[in-house]
Amino acid sequence: MRRQRLDQISWEDFQKLPLSKKGPYFLQSDGQPYHVLIAQQFDRASLDHLCHLATRIRRIAKSKQGMEFLAGLLPHKRAMLDFSQPSSRTFLSFYAACQILGLKVAEVRDPATSSEMKGESREDSVRTFSSYFDMIIMRTPLQGFAEKMAWLLSNTERPIPIINAGSGKDQHPTQALLDIYTLQRSFEKMNGIEGKTIVFVGDLARGRTVRSLSYLLTKYPNVTQYFVAPEKLQIQQDVLDQLDAAGVTYHVTQDFEAVLPVADAIYMTRIQDEWDEDGESQRVDISKYYFKAEHLAQIKFSTIIMHPLPRRQEIAAAVDHDPRAMYWRQMRNGMWVRSALIASIFDRHEEIDAYYQRYLK
Amino acid sequence: MRRQRLDQISWEDFQKLPLSKKGPYFLQSDGQPYHVLIAQQFDRASLDHLCHLATRIRRIAKSKQGMEFLAGLLPHKRAMLDFSQPSSRTFLSFYAACQILGLKVAEVRDPATSSEMKGESREDSVRTFSSYFDMIIMRTPLQGFAEKMAWLLSNTERPIPIINAGSGKDQHPTQALLDIYTLQRSFEKMNGIEGKTIVFVGDLARGRTVRSLSYLLTKYPNVTQYFVAPEKLQIQQDVLDQLDAAGVTYHVTQDFEAVLPVADAIYMTRIQDEWDEDGESQRVDISKYYFKAEHLAQIKFSTIIMHPLPRRQEIAAAVDHDPRAMYWRQMRNGMWVRSALIASIFDRHEEIDAYYQRYLK
Amino acid sequence: MRRQRLDQISWEDFQKLPLSKKGPYFLQSDGQPYHVLIAQQFDRASLDHLCHLATRIRRIAKSKQGMEFLAGLLPHKRAMLDFSQPSSRTFLSFYAACQILGLKVAEVRDPATSSEMKGESREDSVRTFSSYFDMIIMRTPLQGFAEKMAWLLSNTERPIPIINAGSGKDQHPTQALLDIYTLQRSFEKMNGIEGKTIVFVGDLARGRTVRSLSYLLTKYPNVTQYFVAPEKLQIQQDVLDQLDAAGVTYHVTQDFEAVLPVADAIYMTRIQDEWDEDGESQRVDISKYYFKAEHLAQIKFSTIIMHPLPRRQEIAAAVDHDPRAMYWRQMRNGMWVRSALIASIFDRHEEIDAYYQRYLK
Repeated sequence: MRRQRLDQISWEDFQKLPLSKKGPYFLQSDGQPYHVLIAQQFDRASLDHLCHLATRIRRIAKSKQGMEFLAGLLPHKRAMLDFSQPSSRTFLSFYAACQILGLKVAEVRDPATSSEMKGESREDSVRTFSSYFDMIIMRTPLQGFAEKMAWLLSNTERPIPIINAGSGKDQHPTQALLDIYTLQRSFEKMNGIEGKTIVFVGDLARGRTVRSLSYLLTKYPNVTQYFVAPEKLQIQQDVLDQLDAAGVTYHVTQDFEAVLPVADAIYMTRIQDEWDEDGESQRVDISKYYFKAEHLAQIKFSTIIMHPLPRRQEIAAAVDHDPRAMYWRQMRNGMWVRSALIASIFDRHEEIDAYYQRYLK
Repeated sequence: MRRQRLDQISWEDFQKLPLSKKGPYFLQSDGQPYHVLIAQQFDRASLDHLCHLATRIRRIAKSKQGMEFLAGLLPHKRAMLDFSQPSSRTFLSFYAACQILGLKVAEVRDPATSSEMKGESREDSVRTFSSYFDMIIMRTPLQGFAEKMAWLLSNTERPIPIINAGSGKDQHPTQALLDIYTLQRSFEKMNGIEGKTIVFVGDLARGRTVRSLSYLLTKYPNVTQYFVAPEKLQIQQDVLDQLDAAGVTYHVTQDFEAVLPVADAIYMTRIQDEWDEDGESQRVDISKYYFKAEHLAQIKFSTIIMHPLPRRQEIAAAVDHDPRAMYWRQMRNGMWVRSALIASIFDRHEEIDAYYQRYLK
Repeated sequence: MRRQRLDQISWEDFQKLPLSKKGPYFLQSDGQPYHVLIAQQFDRASLDHLCHLATRIRRIAKSKQGMEFLAGLLPHKRAMLDFSQPSSRTFLSFYAACQILGLKVAEVRDPATSSEMKGESREDSVRTFSSYFDMIIMRTPLQGFAEKMAWLLSNTERPIPIINAGSGKDQHPTQALLDIYTLQRSFEKMNGIEGKTIVFVGDLARGRTVRSLSYLLTKYPNVTQYFVAPEKLQIQQDVLDQLDAAGVTYHVTQDFEAVLPVADAIYMTRIQDEWDEDGESQRVDISKYYFKAEHLAQIKFSTIIMHPLPRRQEIAAAVDHDPRAMYWRQMRNGMWVRSALIASIFDRHEEIDAYYQRYLK
């Protein structure tokens, strides 16, 4: 992708662009990400680069000396975590990622403690954060808001990077990145993600992680995707259109057990009933789509079980102890991918590579 | 000013002192501030010193090396931000200022998470903070509370500095200091603040920033002050008495547009309806006192537009892009002034000067 | 005590153990604490070691150089403070202790900002924290929960230490440790805690600090314990059984004033009405058990007055200025003991001793 400048396009024109054309506006001139807003801004090369960097950071972090090196990368930067929606994992893993790289962190989690009570617009609030901090990591229920802020700040004297940590129902790009990293890491000695069969299960209609991950998987040749869900929660047509356009093989089915033996990765998801309009989730029997202890016998020895967490009953606690249960490691991978992302944004990847070459190779 | 000792006066005697006599009790023996509680504790020399230091910190902070120097100044100190009233800007800029200087920070923002639920007095809570931290930055709705705490702690075995980050309707001294710094910086090449015309607009009856700034401006010769507000929100007589006593020229008027051409700085303010007793603000038509896009044509090329923020409709968003709109920079100046203040309290100004002389001159 | 392995016992078997047999499961192989969960895991040698280390840290912390040394001990570690119950002192002193040792800190105080709203189990939440952090400091209303989590994490790929910062009505071990440190420090030149008379006053039925401290005092020879309380709030029989078993002399009485002259330490406590079932506390006249200014004349010159704080009216504010009022120092001691504990958990005690020998002896 070749970078386009966000301060040289009007908001109206920018908004009209398809996702695939927005990506270049979020890059630095050397192709590294500046803003991280949508899964569509990542191509195969940038995914490979990110996974590679995440692994190096993870290995460097194993020693005290390595941790001290990492903490020396960005001690002069401050990040604001602006989370107006509840979150544990995303919040804490970004928090930890910042701490690993030495960034100083401040947070706003409860709007009641902020000036918004005095009638300030969200735009002014974000501009306030940009006055005191060098990066904003933002979770918001408002679709498109992070993009709007990225555009707005790029047109001020003090542009700073924005990372989308989940915006409404549409995007949660860093979740998709950590999922890719988990797949890549799990299949490292099996020729990587190429040619694998990935099975999505659960609330596919509303889970934004599935949408984004399904898209990123199109960057890897010969991946087959299965969508397993009750009819009302099945994957939306626009995602399938995307796969058609990319020439990807996929299957839409309600038969969970039939798919188990062919899966290389099973991606379980939770009912997203926080988006319910009138309790419709309760009228769907999701229990047929639970991964139970007995299913362990039906999957391959090398199959991995993933889940973005939090879970409810989708995966039995008994599954946790099986080595194929990858969701806890997947969660921790989020910390490494987010560290890699932030290091890239602030151009520290070369320093990390140099340290790795010198001390760990 | 010559320092007086807060542990050698009773609370009753201290309380009776006029503001002008309280200042010396908040100083260190070398004249640097120890507590920062009221605008009246600053004289012209200390304002000049503070602006000078803020500029040096701001310039040093431009490089990674400079940031590392600054973060090495106070890594052995811990600050408590005790904010029992909502705030974004003040909170975050203090937070950032502490981080810049390497201070470690803890915060209490929501009284529900603290022990006050168990019936502890506010005095005991503050004394608790003083046991674990080296400075308290305090925002409270209780008038005079920060002063009381400063007196109380000065009479314990563990006195620590207190900074008033806004107390009730009366004082918000660091806001006034950042306003002074913004004026000084904006008029740096125009002979400074001396001789300028400063116009205050909006809710002048209840805005504590206006009260404090109006006072500090008396330290600069030949400044003219205008107070532009609807009758019910006009500046209070005690402020005017202060100006009379200082021999300062001022005008009280309701005619906003007439004043525009003569202003060097226009200080817009928000309706402070959080202090309303029965919704009286809604009965006042404040819209005549809004700064609209068309007003840009009526002010001088060199006039600056200020606002303590948050704003509502007092300034049209279209004004933001005009170079004379100074409120975003004003906000960021708060971070530098607060850094300078904290550096002074902990006697780090000489180290900063030495670094500046060596690397940036 | 000889260490036992928590990953080699089932939860069911572990749960059935008496407190005295649980302690060894919380140790490291060299006898240092790994988890800190119950007062019963400390024997006399470990108490002496901890007090000794706390004093060294406290002395080292007096200089900037010393603080920088301390902050260099654990900069590669991150701690999570998971406080689902309100707290000021415990929270802030742990926070400060982490900062002193250079640990990076994150916090969850308000469950509404976390993923628990999405129906995640507490177990999964804690496992999440363990993915991103290197230690969990946990306060919870759920009796036994911290132990359960310690067991659970010890049986994962990523065990990390857990410190119990107060769990339900049963345990608050670090409070008992800071009380021991306060007594030891106060009586340092009077042959230590041995042979002293300790008087507990107030709500002894529900104060978990009294339970734990009473137990730890059995580790010191010839200590006499008094329990002074109205009948309904008297110490529970199981505590007295413990003292009987240890052969400790004790007295149970309602006569506060009679005990004053013989006390070496008077440990005042607050009515714990947050545990009331139907307002029963209000039917008890506790005012006879207040320490009033006139009582200062009835105690020995060397008697110390303690209180775990927060207080209400149990101790008159006028007592604060008496040198025998030890509760503020007691509170600050919490920070030093908690620092010592964390340093021990992460095996930094030898480095601290070495620094102390070199620079402060």
